[in-house]
Amino acid sequence: MTAGPADTHSRRPAGSIPVLAIVGVGLIGGSFAAALRRAGRVGRVLGVGRNGPSLVRARELGLIDEIATAADAAARADLILLAAPVGAFGAILADMGPALNPGAVISDAGSTKAEVVRVARAALGSRIGAFVPGHPIAGAERVGPDAADADLYTGRNVVLTPLPENAPEDVARVRAAWEACGARVLDMDAAAHDRVLASVSHVPHFLASAYVAQVARANDSTDRLAIAGSGFRDFTRIAAGSPEMWRDIFLSNRDAMKAELEQVRAVLDEAERALDQEDGASILALLDQAARLRRAWKAEQ
Amino acid sequence: MTAGPADTHSRRPAGSIPVLAIVGVGLIGGSFAAALRRAGRVGRVLGVGRNGPSLVRARELGLIDEIATAADAAARADLILLAAPVGAFGAILADMGPALNPGAVISDAGSTKAEVVRVARAALGSRIGAFVPGHPIAGAERVGPDAADADLYTGRNVVLTPLPENAPEDVARVRAAWEACGARVLDMDAAAHDRVLASVSHVPHFLASAYVAQVARANDSTDRLAIAGSGFRDFTRIAAGSPEMWRDIFLSNRDAMKAELEQVRAVLDEAERALDQEDGASILALLDQAARLRRAWKAEQ
Repeated sequence: MTAGPADTHSRRPAGSIPVLAIVGVGLIGGSFAAALRRAGRVGRVLGVGRNGPSLVRARELGLIDEIATAADAAARADLILLAAPVGAFGAILADMGPALNPGAVISDAGSTKAEVVRVARAALGSRIGAFVPGHPIAGAERVGPDAADADLYTGRNVVLTPLPENAPEDVARVRAAWEACGARVLDMDAAAHDRVLASVSHVPHFLASAYVAQVARANDSTDRLAIAGSGFRDFTRIAAGSPEMWRDIFLSNRDAMKAELEQVRAVLDEAERALDQEDGASILALLDQAARLRRAWKAEQ
Repeated sequence: MTAGPADTHSRRPAGSIPVLAIVGVGLIGGSFAAALRRAGRVGRVLGVGRNGPSLVRARELGLIDEIATAADAAARADLILLAAPVGAFGAILADMGPALNPGAVISDAGSTKAEVVRVARAALGSRIGAFVPGHPIAGAERVGPDAADADLYTGRNVVLTPLPENAPEDVARVRAAWEACGARVLDMDAAAHDRVLASVSHVPHFLASAYVAQVARANDSTDRLAIAGSGFRDFTRIAAGSPEMWRDIFLSNRDAMKAELEQVRAVLDEAERALDQEDGASILALLDQAARLRRAWKAEQ
């Protein structure tokens, strides 16, 4: 390819980010900064957040170079990643909007997209074109800057749900940043994203947490935990995740979750009815359907 | 300690098993044989089962030395482990009872205990004292002789639920065998075992399987699976387990499971009500209770 007119305004090498700002310097934001730094794509990294000790720790760990306010980051950064709980996005974007430099692109790592886009439109107004919504499908029960890991996104999926107002080159910049982190980038419609994520992420978290809360409330909770094995360990791992983050996700994706939960309850009702009636054939059919799907999925990974 | 009168009838070194028989030569039985062989505790290993190719494969792998019938194993073995699905125990024990040699001890690896004891009493009659019920809390989604692993039981819990009819030295022999596999052995009452296992093992399997079946039935199942990440992977791992084995477990521990499922549903109802009402404080309290318990449990492991 030869450099066309669209490239001539840029003085930067393709894919480089002179100033990166991370809002929320925990696992998700810290890992993004660490991966881009390792890939040689960033100059200076600004850290923004409400949690003072986390920001200081992130600087100690070299994840960020300096601590900044949201407005300062908006004025100086080329790429901004919102990696705070989605419930905080409205206030952060309202602080950033008026200060935003003309070349800046904002993306996010929020686990829901339709609600985030609504909030971003309200906060950014006519600057909404600078916001390229995204969601890295990665995470772990660990939280905070010490959990940050330059390998977190290697081989993982990142979904972008671009807006009609986004310039294609801004979407390309966000895509290139995630690809530099080793991720595979997919484009989806925001509503489809939310429906699919409700199914494969939010509902499992909801079920695992309700289940663990029930174990916690049992009189013989200690006996149960003493004997719990690897099945319990894996089934409940997600329930150790940040309660604040997941409350925000659940509220933000409430409608899609309710629709999914209704479907899951219908299958659960069917399974319990078979158990009540000692209907081994129906139980076997359901277990077999689940086992086949799970084994086939694993084989693909 | 000096050898007392109770020891004088034995010509074997303490803890050795001249002839071991394994009924069901898959992950559980095969791993038991492999661990005892590695520990130098077994002479000859007999394999019993309905699955011809598995028996042949187990012999190829050196897990067993020879293929035998249930009656043959009962006549020749010093220790017999039933590692078949619990639904098959009645028929197996009925075959073994009349042929059982006077020095033999039978134990099992069944995931439920009250029903197994009922079945064993019916099948063995006056020889019930030879049956020491047990349950290793170990397993994986892998099945078959190729999954057998001499390390499977290292550091895992094994529950014994001894009967009033068991001779203490027979219970001690079963305990010693599991300890030689590297396991920690606990004694419990059969009903308590079943209640606790319904909670930490059977209900999670039931929930995970119903959830995966719902995903399998969705029109956009493929899109969901393409984007599913590590949370989905761990939450659903157990759903890949043997459908036949888990059908038997569910039917065998039906009452305890129903009681637990009712409790889990009550917490799920509460969580869904909070979601409906956008009651962030209640959602946060529930998530926090679950996260605290899960993190504390993990810290103990």
